[in-house]
This record gives sequence, C-alpha cells and structure tokens, in this order.
Amino acid sequence: MTRYQHLANLLAERIEQGLYRAGEKLPSVRTLSQEHGVSISTVQQAYQTLETLRLITPQPRSGYFVATRKAQPPVPAMSRPVQRPVEVTQWDQVLEMLEARRDKDIILFGGGSPDVTQPSLKPLWREMSRVVQHHPTEILSYDELAGRRELREQVARLMLDGGSTVTADDIVITSGCHSGLSIALLAVCKPGDIVAVESPTFYGTMQLLRGFGIKAIEIPTDPESGISIEALELALEQWPIKGVILVPNCNNPLGFIMPEARKRAVLALAQRHDIVIFEDDIYGELAMEYPRPRTIHSFDIDGRVLMCSSFTKTVAPGLRVGWIVPGRYRDRVMHMKYASSGTTPPATQLAVATFVREGHYHRHVRRMRQIYQSNMETYTCWLRQYFPCGICVTRPLGGYMLWVELPEVVDMVCVAKQLCRLKIQVAPGSLFSASGKYRNCLRINCALPTTEKHRLVMEQLGEAVHRAIDQDANA
Amino acid sequence: MTRYQHLANLLAERIEQGLYRAGEKLPSVRTLSQEHGVSISTVQQAYQTLETLRLITPQPRSGYFVATRKAQPPVPAMSRPVQRPVEVTQWDQVLEMLEARRDKDIILFGGGSPDVTQPSLKPLWREMSRVVQHHPTEILSYDELAGRRELREQVARLMLDGGSTVTADDIVITSGCHSGLSIALLAVCKPGDIVAVESPTFYGTMQLLRGFGIKAIEIPTDPESGISIEALELALEQWPIKGVILVPNCNNPLGFIMPEARKRAVLALAQRHDIVIFEDDIYGELAMEYPRPRTIHSFDIDGRVLMCSSFTKTVAPGLRVGWIVPGRYRDRVMHMKYASSGTTPPATQLAVATFVREGHYHRHVRRMRQIYQSNMETYTCWLRQYFPCGICVTRPLGGYMLWVELPEVVDMVCVAKQLCRLKIQVAPGSLFSASGKYRNCLRINCALPTTEKHRLVMEQLGEAVHRAIDQDANA
Ligand SMILES: Cc1ncc(COP(=O)(O)O)c(C=O)c1O
Ligand SMILES: Cc1ncc(COP(=O)(O)O)c(C=O)c1O
Repeated sequence: MTRYQHLANLLAERIEQGLYRAGEKLPSVRTLSQEHGVSISTVQQAYQTLETLRLITPQPRSGYFVATRKAQPPVPAMSRPVQRPVEVTQWDQVLEMLEARRDKDIILFGGGSPDVTQPSLKPLWREMSRVVQHHPTEILSYDELAGRRELREQVARLMLDGGSTVTADDIVITSGCHSGLSIALLAVCKPGDIVAVESPTFYGTMQLLRGFGIKAIEIPTDPESGISIEALELALEQWPIKGVILVPNCNNPLGFIMPEARKRAVLALAQRHDIVIFEDDIYGELAMEYPRPRTIHSFDIDGRVLMCSSFTKTVAPGLRVGWIVPGRYRDRVMHMKYASSGTTPPATQLAVATFVREGHYHRHVRRMRQIYQSNMETYTCWLRQYFPCGICVTRPLGGYMLWVELPEVVDMVCVAKQLCRLKIQVAPGSLFSASGKYRNCLRINCALPTTEKHRLVMEQLGEAVHRAIDQDANA
Repeated sequence: MTRYQHLANLLAERIEQGLYRAGEKLPSVRTLSQEHGVSISTVQQAYQTLETLRLITPQPRSGYFVATRKAQPPVPAMSRPVQRPVEVTQWDQVLEMLEARRDKDIILFGGGSPDVTQPSLKPLWREMSRVVQHHPTEILSYDELAGRRELREQVARLMLDGGSTVTADDIVITSGCHSGLSIALLAVCKPGDIVAVESPTFYGTMQLLRGFGIKAIEIPTDPESGISIEALELALEQWPIKGVILVPNCNNPLGFIMPEARKRAVLALAQRHDIVIFEDDIYGELAMEYPRPRTIHSFDIDGRVLMCSSFTKTVAPGLRVGWIVPGRYRDRVMHMKYASSGTTPPATQLAVATFVREGHYHRHVRRMRQIYQSNMETYTCWLRQYFPCGICVTRPLGGYMLWVELPEVVDMVCVAKQLCRLKIQVAPGSLFSASGKYRNCLRINCALPTTEKHRLVMEQLGEAVHRAIDQDANA
C-alpha cells in the first residue's frame, strides 16, 4: 500500500468510527502533513481518494468537510428458493459468461478472478521459472497420482490454521477446486441423486451437478449466518438427499462466515441423517478475522466431510492447483481422480509449494486481504452513490464478492445484455440459482482494482439499473 | 544420435537385409573407419553395440562375424476375450503400479512414459521459462474454456498430417488425453451403458470406464491389423452398445496400425449401427511410416468420431496438454469439460504452442521415432536372448511398446510381485483386460534407453520367467 492509501484508510476509519462527524471540518493539508510526517502532495492525494469515495466534500477556499452520509444499505433477507429437487438450468448463460474471456477488451465484472497483478506474486513466477530450469526431467514426467508430496506437506501445514490436523497422506492434489468438487461428487453420487446447496450458490458448482445428472435442492440461506439448518433438516426429512455442498467461510456469493455453533450444528445434522458434507473452503484464507475461521472439516470425527480447496483465490487461477481431503472416501476419490483427469502437472505444484514454504504465500495473502477489504468498502460506496436507494448489499466478512439485491422490477439478465454492448460483463443473480431465480440480483467482483476506469463502470452499471426501473415505471 | 550409434544402425540394417549373411566375416575396423571417415574407436564402439545386441560375435584374433540368428519370435495370434459386457476390475493392481512412481529407485518398465531426457526438448523448457517471465499475468489468470487459441491453431495444423481438416474452433484443449477421453465418455454415456474396446486395451482407459460405471465389452483384436470388425459387428447385433474406443494408430499395447480399408470399414459399421467412435490418437505421430497414418476421424462425415489426443507421448506427460475434436458433441463436451475440470493452465499451453510453431516439435518427434524404433529392435533382441523360446512378440509399426505373450504356465502377476522386490516394476497383461485375462502376457516400455542397466533388467526379467516355467514343470 502506498503512503497516501495508508493515510486515506486511516482517515476513512476515523470517519467510520465517528471521530470526525458528518459536516465537521477536517484538518488542513499542512496540519496533517506535519502530524503524519508525509508530504503535502501525499495528503492531497489521500483527500482526493476520500473525495472520490464521497466520504468528504471540498469547500472552495475553506478545506475539506466530512460528507453527510447516506445510511449503509441493508443486508438482503434470508433467501427463499423453491424447496424441491430440480435439474440445474442456466448453462447457456454460464457458457456465454465464460466465453467472454476470449475478448481481451471486455471488463470482467462477473467473473471470480482474484487480482493477480500485485508485486507480492513475483516470487511465484520467479520460482516457476527456477523449477523449469532446475528440474526439467521431473516437470516433464508423470506425477504421483496423489500429487507432489512437497506440496501436500505445505497444504497440511496451511490446514492447521483452519483447525484441521491432517498429514500429507490425507491430501489429494487436484487441478483446482472445481476439479476437486467434481471428483468428490463423482466419488459419492450417481446420476439421479439429490444434493442440497446453499441458495444462492456459485454457478460453477451448480453446473457440475447438471453435468453429472445430479439434482439440486436449494436451501434458504441467510446472507449473514449461512444455510438455514432448520430448512435443511426439513428437506432431509422429505427427500433422499446424498449430501450438501457448503461454502461456510467467506461464502461465494454472499460473503458470510457461518458461526462456529452453526458449523457444528450442520455437522451434527449430517451425522444424524448420514449424509456427506462437501465443504468448499476456497475463500477461507481470505477471511478478515484473525486467526482465520475454522472449517467444518476440523470438527469432523467420522470422515464424512470431503473438503475441497485451491490456490485459485488466494494466489492465482492459472495455476490450477487445488486439493481434496477425502476423509473416508479416499479410495473412491483416488479412483475418480485417475478416471477423470489422471495426474496433475508437476511444475505448478512445485512452484506453489516453495511459494508457501518460504513464507511468500502468507505475506501475499495478508496483503490481499487488506486490499480486498478496502476494495469492497469502495465498491459499497459506489453502489450507494450510483444505484437507486432501496437496494440491499451484503457485508462480506472476507473474500471479494458483493451480492446486490435490486428492486424486484429490475431484470439483471436484460441489463447484462445491454452492458455487454458496452464491453462490460456482469453476473446476474440467476446464474446462482438452479432454476434461474434472483434475476433482480447481481454479484460484483471487487478484486478489480478501484481505479477510475472501474468507478466509471460502476456508474454505467448504476445508470443501466436506473433506466430499467424508469422503463418499468413508464410501462 | 552419436556417430557410433549411426554406424551401428547402418550395419544392423545391412545384416537385417541380408547384405552380410550369417557366419560371414565383417569388414575390419580399419576398413570401416576409412570407408565411413570415422575414427577407429567409433567403429569399435559400433561393433561393441552390435555385439551387445548379439547381432555379431567376435572371434579372437580374426575379427567380427555375423551371428547365426535365432528366428524372429512369432507375432501373437488374434485375442479371444470373453464376449459379453463386464464390469472392469483390476483397479487395485493399477493403483499399485501408479503408486510405484513414488519410489524414485524403482525402474518403471511397466509405465507408459516416453523418454523426456533428449536434448531436443530443451527449446520446450526454455520456452516455458520465457512464458513465465514475459506473460506473468496471463499465465496466472483463468483461460478460455476451450483452451488457448494459439495452441488450438497449432493442433489444427498438426491434424492435417493425419488427414483431418479442422479449425481452431473445432478443438477443445484438455488436461492430457486421459481427461479428454473422460470428458468424451461423460458427454456421450451414462452409468450402465456398454462401450466396446479392443482387447487388450490400455488400463487407463479401462479404469475410466470403471470409474463412470460403464460396462466394457472386449472385442477380439489382431496384433497386426487391429479390432476384428466381424466380432464387433456380432457384438453390436447382440448388445445395446453406445460406442467403441479405438487406438487405431500405433496401438497401445499391440503396436499395430489399422489398414486404411479397415478404418473405413469400422466407421461404416459405426454409421450403420449409429454408435460413436472414441478415437485415441495419442501415439499416432510416432508411426514409423511417412507420411503418418490417417485417423479414422479424417474419414468421418457426420461428426460421430470424437478424437482425443495429447502431447504426452510425443513431447512430455508432465505438460498435461491434450485435446478433443468433439464433432457433433461439442456442446456436451464443453459442458463436461467445465463440469469435470474447468479451464486448463495457460503456461504449458503457451509453451507447447511455440514449441510446435517454431518447428522444434517436428524435429523432436522425428528424432524420437528413430530412437524408439531402434530401442524396440534392441529390446526384441534382448527378449529373444533372455526369454524362453516359444514366446510371441508384437512387431509394432510405431510407438514404443512391445507386447509379449509367454507360455500359458507363466503368471506375470506373480512374477511382477517378485520383481517388485528387485525394484523393477512391470505391467502384467491382466491390467489390459477388464476381467484380468492375459496373465501370461507382459507389456514392455521401450522408451527406456537401451543402457547396460536396462539390459540387465531384461536379463533379470527373463530369468524370473524361466524360473516360473521351471517351477511349473517341477510342480
Ligand atoms: C465457491 C467456489 N468454488 C470453486 C471455484 C472454482 O475454483 P477453481 O478455479 O480452483 O477450480 C470457485 C471459483 O470461482 C468458487 O467461487
Ligand atoms: C492409449 C492411451 N491413451 C491415453 C493415455 C493417457 O494419456 P495422457 O497422459 O495424455 O492423459 C495413454 C497413456 O499411457 C495411452 O497409452
């Protein structure tokens, strides 16, 4: 973080905490410069940043004042999906979104990519280059089926932070979390089976179910505490459900962290009904709280939690390095790994193992957590500013996604089509539902840096939404 | 190839062609040295090589003589598997073999790895390192779902050599051929379906079927001309078969190339019975004949051939870069790619695309074809020498695998266990059958260089086989 960003954050916090009140005059540029031992221009840049965020307003010839704040938008209510098993639809929409990656000029507001431009990633690609130079034969050969031991050892170490005590032998490396989930599902389910999911759920996971002919039953989910255990229990009593897929830490798209008591409760429920929990911890390391939240896996005593994760969100998607902790399904998981993909490339595994072992990973993740948190604040400000009032916005406890609920009349699928022409790609909420619900919702990827370019996109987005509302009023 | 190897090959060919006859005296070292303009020691090395191969014998003080040759061992007869759909077994044995990769001291005679130690691969890892340095952001990001266009363009170019005219848009990059086959099967079949296979068939493909709950029906296959079209037709009349998996070019494990007429015939049969052909062309580029043999895909007119291949055998397994040409199943294949693995890592794709584009690939493959051909000749000599007479050995037209049929009494599964203690891993024939047939057979990976170490292994292997026969005679 640069000096001015640091200072801007500090001031934003003071405003947030009420140390400077709405309408109050802020210290002069000169005073702040002396107080913090930074240059005049640094203070000016900090003030400009806060101005962009509309936290402060300049008054000609008298300085900066704390802006009179609009209230924080409320958090969306508990979701209310159809409560019966359905076939997942929406593939055409997902494919369209994936294909947008082809066009280098499109701004991918809808995707799930992290920010891979930070200098703290440099040691990673230096290491990749080193691995290639020093171990050419190894990286060109078939790997062990379970994946490189060096890497599995590092993953086991990382998992301690989430409360799980596992060894390298308990871990199977996969080609990303997606492939991990796919192997886990293939290991446990067959076509026609029913699996419960949070609602909304990441569209990739939904399409996995569709691919394997598994039916989804969407369970009401609270944007602040996660899946409704009561609703899940009801569903378990009514349907022959094989398992439940959960993203309990820094949920995508809702951003919640399930409180520990609820993690234990859902596990107890799974035990009572003898179902499997597919736990997706891909964003778990990006929690704002320290130490990071525990996984459901860490409470598991009988190997019924299959935990999947990857370095996609914490490091980089292009690595395609993830893992499964398969619990009691190890044999089936090994077989399904062999059947569905064979071995994993050694080069990226070796590079990321070193990246973790030498401490670069922790430095990088610490940095990214801060960046994403501050980005999400900025994006929330922009939402407040450019979007109609009456919207609901999540308050994520980690990760980098915001979920926005717009007035019922807004059809984000239509809005997305219009934005497409402006080379802006967004993710309408319907992608996150098996049956295409949540058309008035929108997920925003706040890993995109808070540059002027992206502020403009948010402004355009807001205008498009306003237009949709006006059109409805005139119709 | 070094000078002495070149010379040794030349002399071996002359002996093979009968220019030097059995018992005849060979030119003196000095004569050859003058004739070929090489040093005395080069000729001596060449003669020593031929001596190791037992093609020539030294006679003290009078020079080298052409050895009286044992006859070439005969080729195995058409296979005769059980002709009904069965569930694939043998997973435990396959897993054991895969796990052997863990132990760096084990000699992997049973695996399918190519030789990745040749200097003609250097441009590849130089390119990998360059890609990392010059495109860090790109290689860290999610790729297009179909894979990098640069690479798909190169693959389309390569496919012209096999007679297929396709564009980059007709190709979907996969993480190796295995993942390609798995996506293709998932796109077409569901659990309980029946798929026909050549017999013997590569164990990886078998285990894929097992993984997805697909039944295999093994079709009699001739080691010189491929699957019996008559037997396949009979099976199609009797069972509701969804498709057939074929490795028509440089078959693994049998080494045949299906004659063009038979390729057309099997395609016509598939059309008549409206089934799918899963064509695995992974060894196709390693055919000895020039130009390389055509694919069945190249004759396809209605998109029923799903062709899978990869750079695993021609370049390196560790790349995990393969592709599917999905024909009329493109939509399903894209969905199953997304469901089963998501996108493919960009780094290896970019590196191999450049490797092909700049001509390194063709140079490398040309070289490897010669090396493998010469290796297979040497291994066949060793088989003749160290194994009991009465064995049958294939005469591959490409690739680098030999299939050996031993006397019925030999149980290679037992022999393999004994060899395991000597840190030698071999592939018993039973891995190549759904029901564990071919226990008296053995596949040998001739990509392993013909060094003294490997000659010794072959000697030990031969001894173990001899012992098995003796034990049976004494029992
Ligand atoms: C919740 C969740 N699970 C899985 C994935 C897929 O991860 P990977 O790219 O590691 O396959 C994503 C990526 O967007 C995700 O958000
Ligand atoms: C016939 C055949 N198909 C597929 C494969 C798997 O190839 P890949 O390593 O590219 O997944 C092999 C490897 O041994 C093979 O021999």
